[in-house]
Amino acid sequence: MSAPVIPKTQKAVIFETNGGKLEYKDIPVPTPKSNEILINVKYSGVCHTDLHAWKGDWPLPTKLPLVGGHEGAGVVVAMGDAVKGWKIGDYAGIKWLNGSCMSCEYCELGNESNCPHADLSGYTHDGSFQQYATADAVQAARIAPGSDLAEVAPVLCAGITVYKALKSANLRAGEWVAISGACGGLGSLAIQFAKAMGYRVVGIDGGDEKAKMFKDLGGEVFIDFTKTKDIVGDIIKATNGGAHGVINVSVSEQAIDASVKYCRANGTAVLVGMPGGAQVKSDVFNQVVKSISIVGSYVGNRADTREALDFFSRGLVKSPIHIAKLSDVPEIFEKMEKGQIVGRYVVDCSK
Amino acid sequence: MSAPVIPKTQKAVIFETNGGKLEYKDIPVPTPKSNEILINVKYSGVCHTDLHAWKGDWPLPTKLPLVGGHEGAGVVVAMGDAVKGWKIGDYAGIKWLNGSCMSCEYCELGNESNCPHADLSGYTHDGSFQQYATADAVQAARIAPGSDLAEVAPVLCAGITVYKALKSANLRAGEWVAISGACGGLGSLAIQFAKAMGYRVVGIDGGDEKAKMFKDLGGEVFIDFTKTKDIVGDIIKATNGGAHGVINVSVSEQAIDASVKYCRANGTAVLVGMPGGAQVKSDVFNQVVKSISIVGSYVGNRADTREALDFFSRGLVKSPIHIAKLSDVPEIFEKMEKGQIVGRYVVDCSK
Amino acid sequence: MSAPVIPKTQKAVIFETNGGKLEYKDIPVPTPKSNEILINVKYSGVCHTDLHAWKGDWPLPTKLPLVGGHEGAGVVVAMGDAVKGWKIGDYAGIKWLNGSCMSCEYCELGNESNCPHADLSGYTHDGSFQQYATADAVQAARIAPGSDLAEVAPVLCAGITVYKALKSANLRAGEWVAISGACGGLGSLAIQFAKAMGYRVVGIDGGDEKAKMFKDLGGEVFIDFTKTKDIVGDIIKATNGGAHGVINVSVSEQAIDASVKYCRANGTAVLVGMPGGAQVKSDVFNQVVKSISIVGSYVGNRADTREALDFFSRGLVKSPIHIAKLSDVPEIFEKMEKGQIVGRYVVDCSK
Amino acid sequence: MSAPVIPKTQKAVIFETNGGKLEYKDIPVPTPKSNEILINVKYSGVCHTDLHAWKGDWPLPTKLPLVGGHEGAGVVVAMGDAVKGWKIGDYAGIKWLNGSCMSCEYCELGNESNCPHADLSGYTHDGSFQQYATADAVQAARIAPGSDLAEVAPVLCAGITVYKALKSANLRAGEWVAISGACGGLGSLAIQFAKAMGYRVVGIDGGDEKAKMFKDLGGEVFIDFTKTKDIVGDIIKATNGGAHGVINVSVSEQAIDASVKYCRANGTAVLVGMPGGAQVKSDVFNQVVKSISIVGSYVGNRADTREALDFFSRGLVKSPIHIAKLSDVPEIFEKMEKGQIVGRYVVDCSK
Repeated sequence: MSAPVIPKTQKAVIFETNGGKLEYKDIPVPTPKSNEILINVKYSGVCHTDLHAWKGDWPLPTKLPLVGGHEGAGVVVAMGDAVKGWKIGDYAGIKWLNGSCMSCEYCELGNESNCPHADLSGYTHDGSFQQYATADAVQAARIAPGSDLAEVAPVLCAGITVYKALKSANLRAGEWVAISGACGGLGSLAIQFAKAMGYRVVGIDGGDEKAKMFKDLGGEVFIDFTKTKDIVGDIIKATNGGAHGVINVSVSEQAIDASVKYCRANGTAVLVGMPGGAQVKSDVFNQVVKSISIVGSYVGNRADTREALDFFSRGLVKSPIHIAKLSDVPEIFEKMEKGQIVGRYVVDCSK
Repeated sequence: MSAPVIPKTQKAVIFETNGGKLEYKDIPVPTPKSNEILINVKYSGVCHTDLHAWKGDWPLPTKLPLVGGHEGAGVVVAMGDAVKGWKIGDYAGIKWLNGSCMSCEYCELGNESNCPHADLSGYTHDGSFQQYATADAVQAARIAPGSDLAEVAPVLCAGITVYKALKSANLRAGEWVAISGACGGLGSLAIQFAKAMGYRVVGIDGGDEKAKMFKDLGGEVFIDFTKTKDIVGDIIKATNGGAHGVINVSVSEQAIDASVKYCRANGTAVLVGMPGGAQVKSDVFNQVVKSISIVGSYVGNRADTREALDFFSRGLVKSPIHIAKLSDVPEIFEKMEKGQIVGRYVVDCSK
Repeated sequence: MSAPVIPKTQKAVIFETNGGKLEYKDIPVPTPKSNEILINVKYSGVCHTDLHAWKGDWPLPTKLPLVGGHEGAGVVVAMGDAVKGWKIGDYAGIKWLNGSCMSCEYCELGNESNCPHADLSGYTHDGSFQQYATADAVQAARIAPGSDLAEVAPVLCAGITVYKALKSANLRAGEWVAISGACGGLGSLAIQFAKAMGYRVVGIDGGDEKAKMFKDLGGEVFIDFTKTKDIVGDIIKATNGGAHGVINVSVSEQAIDASVKYCRANGTAVLVGMPGGAQVKSDVFNQVVKSISIVGSYVGNRADTREALDFFSRGLVKSPIHIAKLSDVPEIFEKMEKGQIVGRYVVDCSK
Repeated sequence: MSAPVIPKTQKAVIFETNGGKLEYKDIPVPTPKSNEILINVKYSGVCHTDLHAWKGDWPLPTKLPLVGGHEGAGVVVAMGDAVKGWKIGDYAGIKWLNGSCMSCEYCELGNESNCPHADLSGYTHDGSFQQYATADAVQAARIAPGSDLAEVAPVLCAGITVYKALKSANLRAGEWVAISGACGGLGSLAIQFAKAMGYRVVGIDGGDEKAKMFKDLGGEVFIDFTKTKDIVGDIIKATNGGAHGVINVSVSEQAIDASVKYCRANGTAVLVGMPGGAQVKSDVFNQVVKSISIVGSYVGNRADTREALDFFSRGLVKSPIHIAKLSDVPEIFEKMEKGQIVGRYVVDCSK
C-alpha cells in the first residue's frame, strides 16, 4: 500500500475550558510519538463520559484545550519508529485507555485501566472528535478488516465496558444475570453479550417498547418498573432465588441498592455506571449472611477489547446507532444534557 | 472402647424467652437422631452471637426454650444408625452450622452456611452450653486426637470465621492484608492465620498494649487509631498503595467505610462482623475506578473447618482463653453486654 | 398422593460372575436404608462402562452377583426415615455415584466422585437394570417434573460427564473447544453443551454423515480424519493457533497424544474417556514451553448434575436414543462388544 | 546523578557457532533501541539453559554469533527515547524473556513467555555474559535499591521459574507440595518459596547432606531415594493421601512419571525442567479417576518477577552461590557438562 497523504490540518471539535464553547474548526494534525500510531478516524461514538469531560464533572482534571471522544474507529496512516505489529491500512480503534505505563503492578497484572499513569482518550489525550488522532500502539484496538467502522465504534467503549462487567460477575453458562437499565446504550449491548456467553437474562427497565426491544435482543424475563410494586420480589421469583449476577448500568442510587437485595446468595452485584457523587449502600447483616459481593468494574483491558470485538465480528453483538456529523457534536451534547438521547450517536468525522 | 455410660439428665444453661432468665439447671440428655452423634461437651467458647441469640436481636427467630453455645469441643459418646465415619471416643466439635440439607444448590456448591434449611447450634438447635449435645454427623467438626479441648473451642467459630474471611479476600502469599479491629477475639486469630498463609499483616486497633500483642502474634505494621489522624493515608503509605485485602472484624460503621478507601485497586474488603442494623457505604466512582470488591463472608464450610483446625493442630494458631465454669455463663453475658470482656471465655461444662 | 404399591419381586438383568451369563429374571425388590430412596426405574441408558463392569475389566472389583446400569430415570416410591427433601412421586435419577461418605476431604470440596468410600451404581451397588433400585437420597439426581424419562436417562451419566469435562477445560465464552470423537454418544452431547456454554466447536470424527450430524448439533468446523493427513495442522489453522480446550472422548491413544499438540498455548486437554490400560504421552519441552495442562475429569458432582439436567430441561441438549427392552440388555452388550452400536440405547424397564 | 561514562568496547564471552569456541574478548558496547535500557551488568548467573543454547540442543535456533547469559544484575546507564519509568542508576535485571510484542493474545493475558515474538536473552538477543547489555524497558526486572547484585542474579531465572511453578500448582496455604529434585539449584529455591507461601514441603533427593540442607531451608519431610524402595508409597503416607502439588525440577523421566502417581486426587503435577527429548507418561484410567492435572509451567511474567524479587528482598529466599569471573564461563560450562556443579555459579562481569 502506498503511504497515505496526511494533511497538515484537519477538522475537530475542541474546547478551551471545561464547560466552555465547543468549536468545530481546523486544528493541526498531530504527529505520532515513537510508540504511537496515527489513525484517520472515520467514525466516533458519543458517550456520556464525553459530556462529563467537557463539563469537568469528575475529580480528575482534563487536558485543556481538549478534543474529546474515546470511541473512534479508523485506519492507520502513520506510526512512530518503535511501533511493532501494525501496518499502514490496518483498521484501528481509539478507546478510553489511550496508553498506560505497562510497567506498574496494575499493568503487569492486566489491570491497565487502574494504571496510575493511564492516558485517557478525550480526557488527558486528544480524542476521536477529530479526523486524525494518535494512540499508543500497544493499547490501540485491533479491528478486523472489513468491519463496518460506524457500527464498531460504540463497541470500543460501551461494548468493552459491559463485556468486562459481565466477566466481573463471574458467572457460569446457564446462570441468571440481571441487567438494571437493560434497554439503554450500555444495557442493550449487555443483553447481547450475556446471551452469547450462555447466561439467562432478566432485564429491568420501563415501558412496553423497551419490553419488546429486550425480547428481540435475546432477553428472557422483563421486569417493568413502571408496572410492578416489588422489583426485588419479582426478580427473586423469576430466577428462583435471585440473580447470580447483576450488571448495574442504571445510574439510579435506589436501583443500585435494590440490586444487592435481589442478588442470589453467593452472587455478585457489579457496579459499572458512574453517577456523580453516588454511593452504594448495603446492609451488612444481609450481605454477610448471603455472602454477596459488590464489585467495581472499570472499562476493560487489551484482552477484553479483543474478545469484545470478536463477538462483534462474529455478528453476535450489534449496536443500534444513529449516524450524525462531527460538526453535530455540540448539538448532541445539548440533547444528552436534556436526557433526549435514545440509543447511541456515532459521528462521521469526514463531515 | 467400652460404650460410655450416658446419664439421663445433665447440667445446662437454658432460657425460656428471649432476654429471659438464664438458668443453670438439670435438663434431659438429648437422644441423637439417626443422622446425629451425641457429644459429651467438655468445653464451650462464649461468643457475642450467643448474646444476640439470647436477646433475640436478629431477624431470624430462635428456638425456645434454648440452650445456647456453638463452640463446643468434646467426645463422641453415642450415634444414630445412619451415621458413618465416626466412632465412640472420637473428639468432635459443635459449630454454628449444626446441620444442613446437603441437597440444595448452596449445599451442593459447598456453601452450606447459605442453606435455607440450615440448623444452627445455640439458635435453632440446642447448643454447647450443656454437657451432652447432638450434632449432625456430616457437619460436626473432626478434632484431632490429643487436642486440648479448651483451647480448640474458639477455633470452632471464631477461628473458622476469620480463616474463611481471609480466603474470601482472595490473596496471594506476599500481599498485604489489613485487619480492622486486629486485637479482639476474632482479630487476634486473624493475625495468626494471615501470617501462616504467607500474608503481610497491617493491623488497626488502639493502644500500646495492643500494639505489643499485635507484634507478638506476627503482625508487621500497627496503625494506632488513638494516635493517627489519617488511618487511610497511613495504611496506603505503609503498604505502598493500599492493602490488597481487608478483614473487617471491627463492627464500627465508620471503620468499615474507611476500609474501602485504604483498599488497593483491584483489592477486596471483606465484611465478616455483623453489627446490628449497620450499613456499608461506598462511593461508586471510587469503587469502579479502583475496581474494588466488597465481599460478605459468613462462617465457613466443612472444608474450611478441617483446614482451620489443621492450622491449630500444627501449632500455628493459638487462642488466648480464660477458662470459667458452665454455671458462669449468665455472668459472662453480663460482662459482655457491658463491654468488659478482653479475650475469649471458654467454659468448663463439667462445672 | 397415595402410597404406591410396591411388589415383592421384580424383573432385573443380573449376573453371578464377571463375564458370566446375563440373566433376565425375577429378583426381590430391595428395601431402602434409612438414607436411601427407592426408585421405580422407568428407563435406563446402556453405557460402555456397564460392559466393562460385567466383564470385570477394571482394577476395582465389582459386587457379585450384580445388577448393572447407572443411567436410571424413574419415580420415587419409598424412602428411609432419615431422608429429607424428597417426596413420593418425585422424578429421580440413578447415576454412577450412588452415594459417598460426605465427610472426607473430597466430599467436603465437592469432589465426591473421588471419595474413597464412593458407592457406584451398577458396580458396587445394584443399578438401574431392574425395576426398583435404591439410591442415596443426597446423591440421587433430581429430575424436573414432566421430563421425558427415556430421553433424560443418558444425561445422567454421559451428559454429566461431558458437561463436567467442559467445565474442567476452564474456557471462556468465545473460545475454541475441540471434541475428539465428536459424533459418538458422549461427543454428540458435548457439542450441544459446548454450544450452550458459548464456546466455538471444532469436531474430529470420520465420514460425511458425521460431518452433517456435527453441523446439525451446532458444531462450527469439522475435521474429517478420513480425509486429512494433518489433523494437528488443520485444527491449529481453523482455530487460529490451536484449540483453547480439548475434550478427549475418543479412546484412541494416538488421538489423545495428538490432542496435546493441537492445544493452544496455555490451553487444556481434558481426559475423560477411559480406554483400558491406555497412557497419555506428552513431550515435556512442548508442554512446558506452551504451558499446556492435561487434566483428568471424572463424571461430575451434585452441582454438575443439577446444572447438566437444567440444560436438558431448557431444551438446549438432546440425546438421540434408541429405545429397547430391559430384556434386550444381553443382546445390546453383544452388539457393543462388536462395535455395532450407533447412538445410545435406552431400555424400557417395564418390558 | 551525572551521566555515567560508557566505553565503546567491553569484555564478553561470545561464540560464533553452536558448540564452537567460547571466547572471552573485547566486543563493542551495544546501543539501546528506543524501547530499551542499557545495563552495566555487574553479575550474571550461569544456568543449564546457557549450556543448551551454546550447544544448540533445542529445536529453536539461536542468534549467532551469540553472547549467552540470562540472569544478569546491574545498573541502568542509558536508555532509548521511548523508555518510561526508569532512570539512570536504577538497579535492573536481565531475564530469560528480554522482550515481547505486548500485543498478541498471550502478551495481553500476561502470558508473555508464550509470545510468538518473544526475544530471549542469551538466545535470540545478546545476554548477560558481557559488561553492557540491552533489555526491553517493559520486561527488564526492577531490582530494589541496595540489593546484593550477586545474590539476586539467580533469582532472575531460577527463582522466577520455581515461583511461577509453585503458583501453577494452584495450592492453598497448609497443603503439601512435593519437590522432586529438592536440593539442586532450582529445588533449593523452591523449598524456600514454598515455605514462604505457607505450604508444607516434602522433598525427594538423595543423601544425608541433602537431607540436612533440606531441613535447614524449611522442608518438613525428606524422602531419600537412595534409601527407600517405595517413593510413591512413602510420599502418600507422609502426606496422608498424596501431595496436593508436585514441582518436577528433576529431569529424570522416571521421576516425572512417579510424580503423577504420588499426586493426591484433584492435585497438580507441574512440569518445569526441560530434559531434552523427554516425555511424560500418565495412565489415563488413574489420571481420570483421580482427576489429576499435569501442567507445564514456563518461566514467569512481569508480575511473577516482581513478586519473586519481593520475597528475595524480604529475606525469605536466599540463593547459595559460588562467585567466579566472567572469563571463567568456558570452564564452568565444562564442569556443567560433566555434572560436577553443586549449587549455582555467578560470575563477576568486571573480571
